[in-house]
Amino acid sequence: MQNRIPVIEKIMSANDRLAAENRAALDAAGVLAFNIMASPGAGKTSLIEQTVQRLKGKLRLAVIDGDIATSLDADRAAAAGATQSIQINTGGECHLDAVMVAQALPQLQLDQIDLLIVENVGNLVCPATFALGTHYRVLVASIPEGDDKPYKYPGSYREIDALVINKMDLLPYVPFRLDYFRQGVAMLNPGVASFPLSCLTGEGMEAWLVWLVEAQQRFKSAR
Amino acid sequence: MQNRIPVIEKIMSANDRLAAENRAALDAAGVLAFNIMASPGAGKTSLIEQTVQRLKGKLRLAVIDGDIATSLDADRAAAAGATQSIQINTGGECHLDAVMVAQALPQLQLDQIDLLIVENVGNLVCPATFALGTHYRVLVASIPEGDDKPYKYPGSYREIDALVINKMDLLPYVPFRLDYFRQGVAMLNPGVASFPLSCLTGEGMEAWLVWLVEAQQRFKSAR
Repeated sequence: MQNRIPVIEKIMSANDRLAAENRAALDAAGVLAFNIMASPGAGKTSLIEQTVQRLKGKLRLAVIDGDIATSLDADRAAAAGATQSIQINTGGECHLDAVMVAQALPQLQLDQIDLLIVENVGNLVCPATFALGTHYRVLVASIPEGDDKPYKYPGSYREIDALVINKMDLLPYVPFRLDYFRQGVAMLNPGVASFPLSCLTGEGMEAWLVWLVEAQQRFKSAR
Repeated sequence: MQNRIPVIEKIMSANDRLAAENRAALDAAGVLAFNIMASPGAGKTSLIEQTVQRLKGKLRLAVIDGDIATSLDADRAAAAGATQSIQINTGGECHLDAVMVAQALPQLQLDQIDLLIVENVGNLVCPATFALGTHYRVLVASIPEGDDKPYKYPGSYREIDALVINKMDLLPYVPFRLDYFRQGVAMLNPGVASFPLSCLTGEGMEAWLVWLVEAQQRFKSAR
């Protein structure tokens, strides 16, 4: 297996170059982009659905959905009211990469969009190492996953700009120590913006939406 | 990226050869082995912990734990009473492979073991494509992950011998359609042995333990 490392390094630097090109295209069009990562079932699609519904009419949102097999997620984003919605079928690949996003971007009318949300493949390991060219990385954790996840998947918690803690409504029913979880997060990523919420009940959604809108306003006024 | 496919094919066939060697070593020693796969937080470690505790004194269990960073899982298996317990730290790799298991096996006293449980890295994509040499593949799903998982991660559901549906105690609190889930499973893997249970309450554990013990008895009597 010794010859795997150079091959992987080559793939990574090609990916980083292409991610920089994606970023430049987004910047030129004035589109602020978010890479949403999580375990399968933590609630990425529900979060995007709720976000699109609640920001509809205020900001023009597009969604790129990465999935290994179906178009269920892009369908949900479109139904929720996304201005534009595109499915990337990764054909079995366990993460999105900058190549896939570069192929998707020309299918969007970037000048008609304020925010682009990229939903990565459900996976707490591989997506963290592939830059896509987005401005922000957001991790969606969820209460029933357990409080040990920052300790066990440190790579996913380390380089994120925001942490959504979804399914807070299940807290009474599962053994989840919020302090232990937050301690793990703080060790890897002190001061990261955190949004405990429930996509099911809507509790806590407001703070997350404010963060998104403010990020977009800062981005717009810096242009 | 065109040159990735041949490299991956080479890795796969080397992996399959080594998996066959692992299987031969396990067969020779009379050890029946299980590859436990799941999303992060579905409850692999809890299932193993409960299984070890309940079979202690009846069968001699060893556990190999794959993790990208910590030894939390091997510690839990040992505390629960595993005869032997070994941690494989994958150093960031998103799945176990046959090489890692081949390196772990000589650290076990195989002649002192009846069952070997291999806990894969928490990931619903990559582990499915790497044979380890175990006799059975078991997937642990969990209720809060959502009922669309067989549709979205078909590769993980297709080549398994048993499906544990964990966290059944959360069914009243989440929108999970058991029929829709089972329909997806049946489409990919008709007749797969299914064990709805809760590691938290213990409900449903008995049927899973009976399946394990019977598999071991069939294996032993076929030698």
